[in-house]
Amino acid sequence: MSTAARHLLVIGIGAGDPDHLTLGAVRAMRRADVFFVLGKGREKSALTRLRRDVLDEHLPGPYRVVEAEDPWRDRRQASDAGYTDAVRDWRRRRADLCARLIREELAPGQCGAFLVWGDPSLYDSTLGILEDIGARGEVDFTCEVVPGISSVSALAARHRITLNRVGRPVHITPGRRLAEGLPPDDSDIVVMLDAHESFGQLAGSGVWIHWGAYLGTPDEILIAGPLDEVADRIRHTRAEARAEHGWIMDTYLLRRRPEGPDA
Amino acid sequence: MSTAARHLLVIGIGAGDPDHLTLGAVRAMRRADVFFVLGKGREKSALTRLRRDVLDEHLPGPYRVVEAEDPWRDRRQASDAGYTDAVRDWRRRRADLCARLIREELAPGQCGAFLVWGDPSLYDSTLGILEDIGARGEVDFTCEVVPGISSVSALAARHRITLNRVGRPVHITPGRRLAEGLPPDDSDIVVMLDAHESFGQLAGSGVWIHWGAYLGTPDEILIAGPLDEVADRIRHTRAEARAEHGWIMDTYLLRRRPEGPDA
Repeated sequence: MSTAARHLLVIGIGAGDPDHLTLGAVRAMRRADVFFVLGKGREKSALTRLRRDVLDEHLPGPYRVVEAEDPWRDRRQASDAGYTDAVRDWRRRRADLCARLIREELAPGQCGAFLVWGDPSLYDSTLGILEDIGARGEVDFTCEVVPGISSVSALAARHRITLNRVGRPVHITPGRRLAEGLPPDDSDIVVMLDAHESFGQLAGSGVWIHWGAYLGTPDEILIAGPLDEVADRIRHTRAEARAEHGWIMDTYLLRRRPEGPDA
Repeated sequence: MSTAARHLLVIGIGAGDPDHLTLGAVRAMRRADVFFVLGKGREKSALTRLRRDVLDEHLPGPYRVVEAEDPWRDRRQASDAGYTDAVRDWRRRRADLCARLIREELAPGQCGAFLVWGDPSLYDSTLGILEDIGARGEVDFTCEVVPGISSVSALAARHRITLNRVGRPVHITPGRRLAEGLPPDDSDIVVMLDAHESFGQLAGSGVWIHWGAYLGTPDEILIAGPLDEVADRIRHTRAEARAEHGWIMDTYLLRRRPEGPDA
């Protein structure tokens, strides 16, 4: 009987373009004995299929995938505290599920992998869940993270822009926090997880927007311009795309002044 | 005589680990007729050598590299305006140089590549320079960006942490801007380009630091802990490493409270 620790790989696989995959991610995938996939709904099933494609292309032989249904998450909370509580509750239930998967589907000494869209360091819950599981002490494991191309990097690349201007900060924020207004400095702002088109709150503020949806996939859509001129087009495009695909994943950069010779 | 446009590839090659290279970056490198490298000093020459290693490993045959000396940059400016002016002046001279390289070393219809450390969208001047050249209208070209693993993603991966906490923003800032204090929200802060150990200004503030130098390379150094407990060790380690290598490239995350069950 082995008493070796289980090893977990948290592998960033990029924003949707199979070309975002790093050599390190491919190498890591080949070390895994089992892949854990949490899936639910149309959005998740499209992403799950993309993950399968990645595995099919880069693994030399058959591989083992353990799929589990992602716990239901309460998305009705409007307040900030309510939101954080709902995410924590959801994370707790995901942690229960993942702890069970690790214990039951991975033998001591074996290597399990989570394939994470984008970069595991940015608005992804996998590392937080593993930290929770580790803190409980119920199952012993080591962990390794392979960084990935985030949707933020993909957005900037596709628009051929930088995220920051010379010497200035970049602020990356969940959409819901835009309600507090723009940060009181000269940073550019990247908005993620914005289900409510929060950019609408900035009408008349003179900002430019660089928007992208389904980044890196064949369905990618890009729109850029002064927010007041393109906001309606983004809303319309977003609604259409969402209706067509059943889900949408988008992100955008807000820049307080257009780029110019003095920018 | 061809009148086809010149094509430029701006390829992010990751933070220093050859495994950070994406499949898309390798593919793009293989399309290039010529690689442009601006180099100077010990730091640059170490990085230039790493770039050569990447090309040697991934290109099937011989390749053409055009190296040019990076224009001198005035780093004495203390004020913010002075800093921005110095960077703009330096960018202008780099633009002059790059415009000449593109005109003289790249035939119309050919494809030239810039290999950029990290991600071209984050605190890198290449896209800004190409924008300046494009705006001058002296040489016609198209441009394509391949995103890369930034040192920010690499830092988070090596420390096995996320950059953000649930529902909260991430603020990425140049070190010199830390003098203005921490952003007045609950964001985590990533500090880049900090030549002056600005974290020293935050003694007694209770923040945690996750610090990394030469990320992704065999010389990588990681230190993490409450800032007040590890600041001296970081300063000491930084000075030693800088003396040994002749240059240092480091970045760090500041978190206002330690991670805990309620974080």
